[in-house]
Amino acid sequence: MTTARRAAQDAVTTEDVTDWWSTSISDIEPGVIRLRGYPVESLIGTASFPATIWLLLRGELPAEHQARLLELALVAAVDHGPQAPSIAAARMAATCGVGLNSAMATGVNLLGDTHGGAGQQCMEVLAAVRHACDAEGVPVADAVRMLLAEYKSARRFVPGFGHRFHPRDPRRDPLLSAVESEVTAGRLAGGHLEIALEIEAQLATGRPRPVPMNIDGATAVIYSELGFEPELGRGLFVLSRSVGILAHAWEERGSGRRIKGPIPPPLLPTYRGPEPRKPQD
Amino acid sequence: MTTARRAAQDAVTTEDVTDWWSTSISDIEPGVIRLRGYPVESLIGTASFPATIWLLLRGELPAEHQARLLELALVAAVDHGPQAPSIAAARMAATCGVGLNSAMATGVNLLGDTHGGAGQQCMEVLAAVRHACDAEGVPVADAVRMLLAEYKSARRFVPGFGHRFHPRDPRRDPLLSAVESEVTAGRLAGGHLEIALEIEAQLATGRPRPVPMNIDGATAVIYSELGFEPELGRGLFVLSRSVGILAHAWEERGSGRRIKGPIPPPLLPTYRGPEPRKPQD
Amino acid sequence: MTTARRAAQDAVTTEDVTDWWSTSISDIEPGVIRLRGYPVESLIGTASFPATIWLLLRGELPAEHQARLLELALVAAVDHGPQAPSIAAARMAATCGVGLNSAMATGVNLLGDTHGGAGQQCMEVLAAVRHACDAEGVPVADAVRMLLAEYKSARRFVPGFGHRFHPRDPRRDPLLSAVESEVTAGRLAGGHLEIALEIEAQLATGRPRPVPMNIDGATAVIYSELGFEPELGRGLFVLSRSVGILAHAWEERGSGRRIKGPIPPPLLPTYRGPEPRKPQD
Amino acid sequence: MTTARRAAQDAVTTEDVTDWWSTSISDIEPGVIRLRGYPVESLIGTASFPATIWLLLRGELPAEHQARLLELALVAAVDHGPQAPSIAAARMAATCGVGLNSAMATGVNLLGDTHGGAGQQCMEVLAAVRHACDAEGVPVADAVRMLLAEYKSARRFVPGFGHRFHPRDPRRDPLLSAVESEVTAGRLAGGHLEIALEIEAQLATGRPRPVPMNIDGATAVIYSELGFEPELGRGLFVLSRSVGILAHAWEERGSGRRIKGPIPPPLLPTYRGPEPRKPQD
Repeated sequence: MTTARRAAQDAVTTEDVTDWWSTSISDIEPGVIRLRGYPVESLIGTASFPATIWLLLRGELPAEHQARLLELALVAAVDHGPQAPSIAAARMAATCGVGLNSAMATGVNLLGDTHGGAGQQCMEVLAAVRHACDAEGVPVADAVRMLLAEYKSARRFVPGFGHRFHPRDPRRDPLLSAVESEVTAGRLAGGHLEIALEIEAQLATGRPRPVPMNIDGATAVIYSELGFEPELGRGLFVLSRSVGILAHAWEERGSGRRIKGPIPPPLLPTYRGPEPRKPQD
Repeated sequence: MTTARRAAQDAVTTEDVTDWWSTSISDIEPGVIRLRGYPVESLIGTASFPATIWLLLRGELPAEHQARLLELALVAAVDHGPQAPSIAAARMAATCGVGLNSAMATGVNLLGDTHGGAGQQCMEVLAAVRHACDAEGVPVADAVRMLLAEYKSARRFVPGFGHRFHPRDPRRDPLLSAVESEVTAGRLAGGHLEIALEIEAQLATGRPRPVPMNIDGATAVIYSELGFEPELGRGLFVLSRSVGILAHAWEERGSGRRIKGPIPPPLLPTYRGPEPRKPQD
Repeated sequence: MTTARRAAQDAVTTEDVTDWWSTSISDIEPGVIRLRGYPVESLIGTASFPATIWLLLRGELPAEHQARLLELALVAAVDHGPQAPSIAAARMAATCGVGLNSAMATGVNLLGDTHGGAGQQCMEVLAAVRHACDAEGVPVADAVRMLLAEYKSARRFVPGFGHRFHPRDPRRDPLLSAVESEVTAGRLAGGHLEIALEIEAQLATGRPRPVPMNIDGATAVIYSELGFEPELGRGLFVLSRSVGILAHAWEERGSGRRIKGPIPPPLLPTYRGPEPRKPQD
Repeated sequence: MTTARRAAQDAVTTEDVTDWWSTSISDIEPGVIRLRGYPVESLIGTASFPATIWLLLRGELPAEHQARLLELALVAAVDHGPQAPSIAAARMAATCGVGLNSAMATGVNLLGDTHGGAGQQCMEVLAAVRHACDAEGVPVADAVRMLLAEYKSARRFVPGFGHRFHPRDPRRDPLLSAVESEVTAGRLAGGHLEIALEIEAQLATGRPRPVPMNIDGATAVIYSELGFEPELGRGLFVLSRSVGILAHAWEERGSGRRIKGPIPPPLLPTYRGPEPRKPQD
């Protein structure tokens, strides 16, 4: 080791090392586990699972109506069947000789920008429109009109609206009703809901069929109204869908299949490559 | 393709393909999502998140006391800090330019047999003792004595008992109290609790310090009393710890660090390999 | 923090921290990268990729014949098509909006005990038979006979022999020929090859069709003859199959598909669960 | 199932299913494995591992000089030590009770846009400059000047140049020398090399210290000159670094440690969150 390196290394203290891993979430001492300051034994039996999720992510315990709304959204998104690649991959993993945790990790890893990111993207859209309205005093209808014009000219879909399978996503109505009740009761501001409904209304105009909010749009409204940042929207979706991933991996485990491929044997993928040949050809 | 292959392939029908992915969990039709037969909109707002987890894993909605006990166990295990490799790996992943879902997958993937498997292993132990008692009429105390003798001669720790950090795991008491209340109320059989307490009592005998049940042992009692199979114990632990993994990945995201290593720069791992040399040496 | 904890923490030095991450593989200083003692610039252009793999795993550069044989085995196992769950999962991941590295991780994660572990297991079998012969002076034929009797009574397949798809694995002959040449030339001992051939011969006896060595068996012979430990057999297989995983993920990327499920829409998994019902039912 | 759904499903044939998984890479029949048209047994012993990698990714076998240059780049990037999060995470995974494949997947999953993406990003930069020169007739020096002005005004680093640890990356010179030889011999066009050297020269101008090309920049030159698309640059880096990931996971396996955290016990992360409190507070 050079002298300079040795000197640089010697300047680092053990406290620098423990600081490198510092956290505001959990405080662990022998016999003590505190989460955001609360001893874990004070939470067990008093805090619901959704309230605990909120506590760890936000730093404070939620009000009852906040926990209830978060719970609705978590329940709504637990599963959409094995035709989804995340679920299918987890089921296949469960037949390959890995632990159930690795099968779950496989499914979670597939909830990327395209497969699991629409909720987060919708939250970003709602936040952007909201910002335009608040900061620049643009009316919601105008801000939405500009937004949709941009998406149209870029030939992109607005994330959170429309579903390639459901003409109307059955999870939309119960989720939005719950938000509306909270807004009516004065417990939520309702600004994000207003924007989302305006997008939905304008998207329907002049189209043969409406393009209603889907699960990603409806949960984006909830998470935005509750003050979560967009990227956490993805995180919450992952927590929710992990339930379906686990249930399907476990069901596949029960099948006793080994090394399950995507299609049943003896079916084989169609080959479309070069004709048989030899290296010296 | 050979004629035989072609014939085998032709014998497969499209129904064989949809059957290959058959499931009893979710039934998806355009406009319809049913989970274990329940339309999802009938669950949103009526079923709690733990009840929905139970429904997907077990096929039926739980009784209220079952959901409550499951919730306690899920709350108890959400986090134990960044000195755990699962949390640390997720935090490092969050600085590497992958989605929050992939950071979570990284953490979940580390909850393997050694790091996340003690609960499942403890459930297997409880089930084995239970089986010996039920099937062969051995008294609990004798069955436990035999078990501990086996572990002692194999120089192995009994999974679910003792903690390398906590002299007494603060999550033990509130979890066991909750089970005891249910047993007293006649809503749980209590057989697994009895076995676990007997193990704890015998482990303490003749030792300077007790070896109390830890979080894995206490949740193993709960999950066993609730009728979950051991491997699902792992799955439930993963659902719970995913909350802490998400919270820590998100906190690290907020730090703005890039490519976070395990120790702060300019510290470098100690090198213990061969002296500098050249290929022709 | 308690005084005892503070004292324990204060007893840890920065050197303990750098030692915690000590390694014999790489020595990194500013401007310097040494692998097993060799400056990386002395390897670039002189060491082949297989030789570098060997160096990192074994600590020394291989002889030319060792590197050549390792290369054969790495080439042989690169791909077996998208009907394998590892390849299929990586292809699906590539359509979900994650980086190509995460798509590859998805595939690699599925090469577990069942899907990717046969080579390792075969190496363990060969080592066990070898040990019985060496330590207890049992003739190879007898040791193999006992082994096969055990597998037969446990109704298990011997790992590395037979293929559910190929009557005779086309990779067997070129791999074994290469080992035989090395044995003939006196550069390999041949003990593991002898055992594997004896297993193959005894498995064929009294059966209508032979149960020839497959890719896992043939590479197990190579890796065992080269002195790799069984678990590294799995690692080498992963390095090899990562090539196919990457190629398939990349091909799928080129398809432009988004959120590719296991079966083409509008096909849906068959539902076999409970009839439609309501929570109050 | 509705009549419409049934009709849609009935319109799908088994051939649609096998086409859904079609590939140009591998053709598998009983007893037959062809890669890009070549029977695998014709490659074993004749094609090097790098040549096989090229074949699977590009569709054709490489010329000898192409395979040689690819091999150099693969050798150069195999490892950079356990202070990298990918290596550290794989080592921690190896102590958690998961298979070596899952430990490798953990490391690979961390080679995301920030940790493993600089090579790909550098290739995109080289391609963009190249395009500006070719399509619009801009001289290389001017195109580079514009590029660097953009990066400067955005306060971003140019990917592939400079290293936070090495004043001069020791892998730069041997890699670039090899490219220069090929250009001199007329086997490579040299356009990407020219651009990269121009960037390096302009970056050095007016700075106290140069900002030389690093491993990502040097391999980006190689992969670009060889005609790989930028995203495959990431894929090739992953193949290379997988070797180091495996070697480190394996070394950690040998340590016998269980549940290795990022810092040695009894060190604990610094806690910076709220003071101890109770839910009713």
